[in-house]
Amino acid sequence: MDVDLNKIPQYLLKQEDPIFSFNKAIIDATNHLCVAYKPNTAFYEAYGLKGWKSLEKTIHYLNENYPEIFTIADAKRGDIGNTSSMYAKAFFDDLAFDSVTVAPYMGKDSVEPFLDFENKHTILLALTSNQGAFDFQTKTVDGKELYKQVLETSKTWKNAKNLMYVVGATKAEYLADIRKIVPDSFLLVPGVGAQGGNLQDVCKYGLNKDVGLLINSSRGIIYASNKEDFSQAATVKASEIQKEMEQLLSK
Amino acid sequence: MDVDLNKIPQYLLKQEDPIFSFNKAIIDATNHLCVAYKPNTAFYEAYGLKGWKSLEKTIHYLNENYPEIFTIADAKRGDIGNTSSMYAKAFFDDLAFDSVTVAPYMGKDSVEPFLDFENKHTILLALTSNQGAFDFQTKTVDGKELYKQVLETSKTWKNAKNLMYVVGATKAEYLADIRKIVPDSFLLVPGVGAQGGNLQDVCKYGLNKDVGLLINSSRGIIYASNKEDFSQAATVKASEIQKEMEQLLSK
Repeated sequence: MDVDLNKIPQYLLKQEDPIFSFNKAIIDATNHLCVAYKPNTAFYEAYGLKGWKSLEKTIHYLNENYPEIFTIADAKRGDIGNTSSMYAKAFFDDLAFDSVTVAPYMGKDSVEPFLDFENKHTILLALTSNQGAFDFQTKTVDGKELYKQVLETSKTWKNAKNLMYVVGATKAEYLADIRKIVPDSFLLVPGVGAQGGNLQDVCKYGLNKDVGLLINSSRGIIYASNKEDFSQAATVKASEIQKEMEQLLSK
Repeated sequence: MDVDLNKIPQYLLKQEDPIFSFNKAIIDATNHLCVAYKPNTAFYEAYGLKGWKSLEKTIHYLNENYPEIFTIADAKRGDIGNTSSMYAKAFFDDLAFDSVTVAPYMGKDSVEPFLDFENKHTILLALTSNQGAFDFQTKTVDGKELYKQVLETSKTWKNAKNLMYVVGATKAEYLADIRKIVPDSFLLVPGVGAQGGNLQDVCKYGLNKDVGLLINSSRGIIYASNKEDFSQAATVKASEIQKEMEQLLSK
């Protein structure tokens, strides 16, 4: 749910809270086809106080109406220990998300405060979907790529059972190696759709005995149309992807 | 400005906006001794909408009353390109900070959207002040520590002149090597005070011809007292550090 006011149907801009109106329509039109929603905090912070309010309303709407659906704050936070505790409090306590994405650069004591929360999940960036992933993540560190070091090292952290990992769909062939390190972990896979990742390849290399994949399609669904039929178009697009997934799972 | 409601003088909690009241008092009591203020966004997000409002009021207060003072959003953001653009918009346009801290894990296209902004500074995490810095940052990547790779690689990015770097004071001896890679860059140095960093060592290894250091002391100053005299105590503490810096600079 990366809502950009320039991309949503323009008639919504007349409403009191266009971002929330848009999200509510998308959620109502797609909840029977989705297992998770992932608002990216940047798109709310960019609109200041109003944007933060829209984020709050969106997560409350999800938790009240669709409590069984998994929620992800795509926030990519991470800081020294006492500061990460405050971020964890923001997303797990105050906003009541089920999970949050976290950057690994600052190491163990920047991630463990998130892992402290029972029944919450911390989704650590391992291999991201963008071109810049090749700047550092795939570089060799002590004989092994940095993203593999991140996966292996994080397994030793306290409450590591609460970890999930971000692995970009644009690098699906890396999933085979990743599964050797974290065979049982759930992976959040962005990059299918607008960013060019391929669903079949992701499933081929990434599925495990529990499925183990949360595959994200954002812009492909929410911006399927920018006219008054945007929510129906989102249903159609989400349904197509859901069917494709169902077929791949029944193979 | 890492405001924790459990640590500020408890009589402030009766006020309408305790966080802003606290910040305003600290700013008014220390602005003649400081060149920059650095609110850490985690401490505002943890209080939800109210917290974001306090952050907004704090930065507006600074920009209206002390426009010559440099402001830093300590946010440690970073995401794929179109998302980083939204973060940059949030901190540079909407909140009108002079600078923002950014994490390097996602590479070039996650940082360049921040660098696009004229007259704004992007402060990239290089070597942080926490123990977790040794998990990945100091590991050897292609024959060189990761934080050095971050410094060198980032110098090649578009508008790299707008870069500054975070280098923790708790690892002051590393500054000599860092200065060989980025002799002219300004460094933001957290970790003096509460985290145990030593001001003399930081200056010894980090000063360049333009000074080149922004040394941060947060909790040491703002929590100098938790009684009604907290702002006076902050003046005293900030003054001590300012005098110590003055002496080191006049050597």
